[in-house]
Amino acid sequence: MIEHTVQVRVRYAETDQMGYVYYGNYATYFEVARVETFRHLGCSYKSMEAQGILMPVLDFKTKFIKPARYDDVLSIKVIIKEKPGVRITFNYEVYNEHNVLLNLAETTLVFINDQFKPTLPPDSVLTIFTPYFQS
Amino acid sequence: MIEHTVQVRVRYAETDQMGYVYYGNYATYFEVARVETFRHLGCSYKSMEAQGILMPVLDFKTKFIKPARYDDVLSIKVIIKEKPGVRITFNYEVYNEHNVLLNLAETTLVFINDQFKPTLPPDSVLTIFTPYFQS
Amino acid sequence: MIEHTVQVRVRYAETDQMGYVYYGNYATYFEVARVETFRHLGCSYKSMEAQGILMPVLDFKTKFIKPARYDDVLSIKVIIKEKPGVRITFNYEVYNEHNVLLNLAETTLVFINDQFKPTLPPDSVLTIFTPYFQS
Amino acid sequence: MIEHTVQVRVRYAETDQMGYVYYGNYATYFEVARVETFRHLGCSYKSMEAQGILMPVLDFKTKFIKPARYDDVLSIKVIIKEKPGVRITFNYEVYNEHNVLLNLAETTLVFINDQFKPTLPPDSVLTIFTPYFQS
Repeated sequence: MIEHTVQVRVRYAETDQMGYVYYGNYATYFEVARVETFRHLGCSYKSMEAQGILMPVLDFKTKFIKPARYDDVLSIKVIIKEKPGVRITFNYEVYNEHNVLLNLAETTLVFINDQFKPTLPPDSVLTIFTPYFQS
Repeated sequence: MIEHTVQVRVRYAETDQMGYVYYGNYATYFEVARVETFRHLGCSYKSMEAQGILMPVLDFKTKFIKPARYDDVLSIKVIIKEKPGVRITFNYEVYNEHNVLLNLAETTLVFINDQFKPTLPPDSVLTIFTPYFQS
Repeated sequence: MIEHTVQVRVRYAETDQMGYVYYGNYATYFEVARVETFRHLGCSYKSMEAQGILMPVLDFKTKFIKPARYDDVLSIKVIIKEKPGVRITFNYEVYNEHNVLLNLAETTLVFINDQFKPTLPPDSVLTIFTPYFQS
Repeated sequence: MIEHTVQVRVRYAETDQMGYVYYGNYATYFEVARVETFRHLGCSYKSMEAQGILMPVLDFKTKFIKPARYDDVLSIKVIIKEKPGVRITFNYEVYNEHNVLLNLAETTLVFINDQFKPTLPPDSVLTIFTPYFQS
């Protein structure tokens, strides 16, 4: 299992007139959280994309529990429970500075090659991930 | 049951460097689709909010099947299967101009009053919805 | 001279907690306004891009006079005062439904080819524009 | 004079299909840059807003020189040349990691009170700013 926490501060642009973070903006926070988790593990999503591997999102679920507000520093715990194959699933828990759980989410992404065909992650990525999923 | 189709044209701002609509931008399309469905039925979300009733999103799920692209005119079919109570669930089917299904989504929203307490929809809304859900 | 008015309805996602349209979101409205002006004249920006001509923005100015609000239908008057060459300048006037002037803007874009070099607009575009700028 | 540099990493959501940062997204970067400059000086924009002082944008200009790209860490130098009165003007210079100047911008904001009337900045803000503008 992999767990890593990433912090994101809420921008004014991301609020709406309800005074909350607009529900659609969490998708961007989750993107930042998974890219920074990759970087922390030693993978650069940018380099992977430059090598012709893209990772579109297949599936996205969020359960909103409490609102996030302007200027909050959100802690996004990213959890990868299973060793990535052609697909990789990320779970997210979002907390505010008072350690209150704001929402829960899950995204599944697929690795695709430059022919837009599903593919296994590059060896450089598999090498990094494998040790975390030894039984 | 209520069914209504709303069209939205993809903006350049909504694409990403993959050449697809960024996955987070569908949330905004679904917002537009449900607000226009309300307007079509005779309810204005704006007026409802001015009367102190807000509708935050509790739950949001999307399954991405095919990408949408710049300048596509998307047809978003909105389906309300059950009579709204304190909560209301919208299902969405997104098609492009070739009638290809691009994604499926579901959002559940809650009606809250100016004390931020869950509440039934205003009578004006219930009156409009009730005839669609006679058994 | 070319003048054309395009309408855009303000989305909830585009408001911020001040209850106004976030100032950064007008850039997207101006994009929609110029693309729809092109379409009205008989040019498709999408097709032009598919032929290898891109139009990045060089210069962008806005003067905010009054705020736009959620659900407002904005009328964006697009004005092209000079015949496009390598560059094209659009002026914008944004009005709400009460015909109140909300803001004024100007963008200058450059036509670039697939070598990212500035270039004249394609003949198909010049042919459409020329009659509007006969002295 | 006040000068302060703020770093922002480009998110995937902020790119467009040209492979650049969408021109409208710089407005958000400038918001982050000025709020972090305020925080660095000892002012919290959030607290100021909680006390009933808002700062809408009156005027916004950007000159785009080179594009920013996905995952770039942008350094945004914020410059306040004149002591704030009812209005405050920020200049911005955006550089990438190779210290290449990408764009130049300027925003003017106005302090308004809870009656939406232009007002001087609160004393707590003036006290912080004054020493930087002694002749």
